[in-house]
Amino acid sequence: MTNLERLLDRIIDRVNVNLREPAFDVGPYVRGLIPWGKFVKYYGFYALTLHHPLHFHFNHSSLAGSYFLGKCIVDNSLLYKSDIRGDELKSRGEVFRYRGMDIPLHDDEVIRIRDSFLVKNLVHNYSHDPESPEEFLIQNTVALQFANIHGSPIEGSFLGPFATVDLTTVHDCVIGKYSYVQTGEVSHRYVEDGSIWIHAENAFNFNFHFHPEDLRRYVDYQPGKDPTGVFMDFIQERKRDFIAAFESVDSRHSIEVPEGASVSRYSVIKGNTSIRENVLVAQRAYLEDAWLGRGSNAQENCYIINSRLEEYNITAHGGKVIHANLGRRVFVGFNAFLRGSADCPLTIGRGSIVMPHTIVDLEEPLEIPPGQLIWGYIRNRKDLAFHSISLEKLSRTLGEVVIGAMIFQGNGREFVQAFRHRIEHILEANGAYYSRKKNNPGHAQTAQNISFNIIQPYPEGDRAGLYPTIDIRP
Amino acid sequence: MTNLERLLDRIIDRVNVNLREPAFDVGPYVRGLIPWGKFVKYYGFYALTLHHPLHFHFNHSSLAGSYFLGKCIVDNSLLYKSDIRGDELKSRGEVFRYRGMDIPLHDDEVIRIRDSFLVKNLVHNYSHDPESPEEFLIQNTVALQFANIHGSPIEGSFLGPFATVDLTTVHDCVIGKYSYVQTGEVSHRYVEDGSIWIHAENAFNFNFHFHPEDLRRYVDYQPGKDPTGVFMDFIQERKRDFIAAFESVDSRHSIEVPEGASVSRYSVIKGNTSIRENVLVAQRAYLEDAWLGRGSNAQENCYIINSRLEEYNITAHGGKVIHANLGRRVFVGFNAFLRGSADCPLTIGRGSIVMPHTIVDLEEPLEIPPGQLIWGYIRNRKDLAFHSISLEKLSRTLGEVVIGAMIFQGNGREFVQAFRHRIEHILEANGAYYSRKKNNPGHAQTAQNISFNIIQPYPEGDRAGLYPTIDIRP
Repeated sequence: MTNLERLLDRIIDRVNVNLREPAFDVGPYVRGLIPWGKFVKYYGFYALTLHHPLHFHFNHSSLAGSYFLGKCIVDNSLLYKSDIRGDELKSRGEVFRYRGMDIPLHDDEVIRIRDSFLVKNLVHNYSHDPESPEEFLIQNTVALQFANIHGSPIEGSFLGPFATVDLTTVHDCVIGKYSYVQTGEVSHRYVEDGSIWIHAENAFNFNFHFHPEDLRRYVDYQPGKDPTGVFMDFIQERKRDFIAAFESVDSRHSIEVPEGASVSRYSVIKGNTSIRENVLVAQRAYLEDAWLGRGSNAQENCYIINSRLEEYNITAHGGKVIHANLGRRVFVGFNAFLRGSADCPLTIGRGSIVMPHTIVDLEEPLEIPPGQLIWGYIRNRKDLAFHSISLEKLSRTLGEVVIGAMIFQGNGREFVQAFRHRIEHILEANGAYYSRKKNNPGHAQTAQNISFNIIQPYPEGDRAGLYPTIDIRP
Repeated sequence: MTNLERLLDRIIDRVNVNLREPAFDVGPYVRGLIPWGKFVKYYGFYALTLHHPLHFHFNHSSLAGSYFLGKCIVDNSLLYKSDIRGDELKSRGEVFRYRGMDIPLHDDEVIRIRDSFLVKNLVHNYSHDPESPEEFLIQNTVALQFANIHGSPIEGSFLGPFATVDLTTVHDCVIGKYSYVQTGEVSHRYVEDGSIWIHAENAFNFNFHFHPEDLRRYVDYQPGKDPTGVFMDFIQERKRDFIAAFESVDSRHSIEVPEGASVSRYSVIKGNTSIRENVLVAQRAYLEDAWLGRGSNAQENCYIINSRLEEYNITAHGGKVIHANLGRRVFVGFNAFLRGSADCPLTIGRGSIVMPHTIVDLEEPLEIPPGQLIWGYIRNRKDLAFHSISLEKLSRTLGEVVIGAMIFQGNGREFVQAFRHRIEHILEANGAYYSRKKNNPGHAQTAQNISFNIIQPYPEGDRAGLYPTIDIRP
């Protein structure tokens, strides 16, 4: 048995101990999922910049194909082709505000990953957990393909493929495939597949469930196998395009990068693609025949194809936008899948919000008016009626609204304001409003000049696939 | 002033303090020698294998384009495109024999480089210094282009371009350009340009000096400028071929690599080149229309062009072999330059030894018989007579022999035996005699499967060109 095999067993044991309630065995899901040879094959890399805190510590782990930025401590973990981004970590001396409380930080915040198995995940920092503001901990956790762990400390949990936990502390939970959870805290829960659940205490609750049959077409999975369905087919078809990006030590895109914009060398840029000032194109983003207006951002694992996105659009981690025209300030949430076609284009009016984990897969042309909130599964105009509400109308809601399979309870204005506030934060953090005079750089500006250091595992022997112990500080 | 500039000043000060006797200011030689932008441009890399000890520690240093293998600790140093090889380091518990004394090692040996500026050097380990068997120290030292530091702890010294110190502890010395020193220990000396000096206490002394005018044609240098002359022209003409080797993350040569052989991915292989079993082609070796017989090795910075080398040839670090046919077991020493041409080919008979730092630059065809020792500067048959002796005749020498500008004193047999013993050691260490049955791998076999981890400096700001502090252990 190699060290890598022993490590996987150790991780399985630890996750299972946590998941004794709800009773769940992660073993079948992860054993054999990634052939051992692949852990040897891919290099990992970490980013070196002046603009981010820096401390990398990797110990007894495999990091195949993974990307690290900021302060990341990894022990006894298998991180496979995951993006670990610590570029918004809090700093020592900063004060973290939580529900009116001021919590001063005694140390710089770090992302700490222990005894976990993460596959093609996006981990984004700035833990919101008031109990541990200096440490964004992911421990005893298994997260499958294209799950997003976004400012969400997680312990003893299992995340199905394309699941997202967002600003939520998770203890001992199973989060089903393509579920989105943003509830502040959750423990000992089994969140069913395709749940969209947003909850703020004493304010609002948003709930939607995909129909299992609908969902199965887009994402399905069997223990120990790659997920199947439309999402994976879509990604697989474009997988080869990333090879060139990862092959050379210092490739540059031929695209023109205007003032204030940044294009990751680990992104794919194809066809007639153009970006404007202050645009951020993150690593593993994919643009083909895409036009991105000023201050837009294309985040990790997103795809924007045959589409025009006006100013200040956000395509969040894993969002997919195909044959679409998006007006100003349209927000496309995590892992949303918006697929028009040449015959059935999608238009979304300005200021609309596409909820995380929304599927719009058109069988007729569709025009969504400005200022809408949309969610769920939409193929045509009829579906739209059951999966949207105007933000203006929602803002006037106090109490309960039921539309199709969606149930909203609470204060609509707070819900809309929370969303709008967050969108503004994302735009600002990503550098959309940067101007040289004001000197308020965001990710787009600070990512303009990054060195990438490439790290590889032992190529053979008992340690094959494991990385040496590495400690890097300024 | 950037950190890099301050670091260079610090190094200059420390070397100069050591070199107050002989009075020598290294400042003019190193200031402006490498444009600051180049320290930012090139990545360094370290090798990860199961077959070598592993500990890398880099602190407050620039490592642009440098290569590390084994246990290497670097503090406050500028290593520019240097090869630091720690693959023969002694291990804890081993017993180091020195003149009949047994010295047990309390720790694993490390290469430790401090406050030094090394440019395009080859540093090869296994310190022979009995006073410090656990540490191969290079401190307060400046070494210019293509100097070799071979098992030679050095403190407070300056090495001119193409100089070699070999198995010699060096304190506070200036070693002139293209000088070769193998004397066990040397302090407070100014070794003149083009000195070939081999000394073994109570055994023998070999001394030769190049004529300054002859030497100037091949290597010359002015403070703060790149060296000039035939050697540099030759290297510059082939420099571009290395670009492809360093550009991609995991390139492979198309050459067929037989059983027991190894070809570094950071070498250049051109034209109709063929290698046999157990051949070692090291990083930054250059082969063009070359044929290498079984067990031969092409070491770092060597060039073998339009040549056929029979079994068990050694082309040592920096050796150049052009239009030559070398018989079995020919040894070509450090930085030797053997240049025939299509009209004036060079033939060297089996078992001959080309001394380190020998220039054979032909104006007529030349055939050197088997079993010769050759040195100095040879353009034709007439020159050969003044720069060679048969090993058999030398072995019978006891006392003094003067041939041309060479003077030999002492026991010829011991001199020849020492050389032959060393050649055998090199062949064995490089894996020339490897067979799967006997399982005695050398460098050629242990280098077959190496991961290369790529490290880059800060790209901008005060730290531009400096690397972060990195610590890597198994």
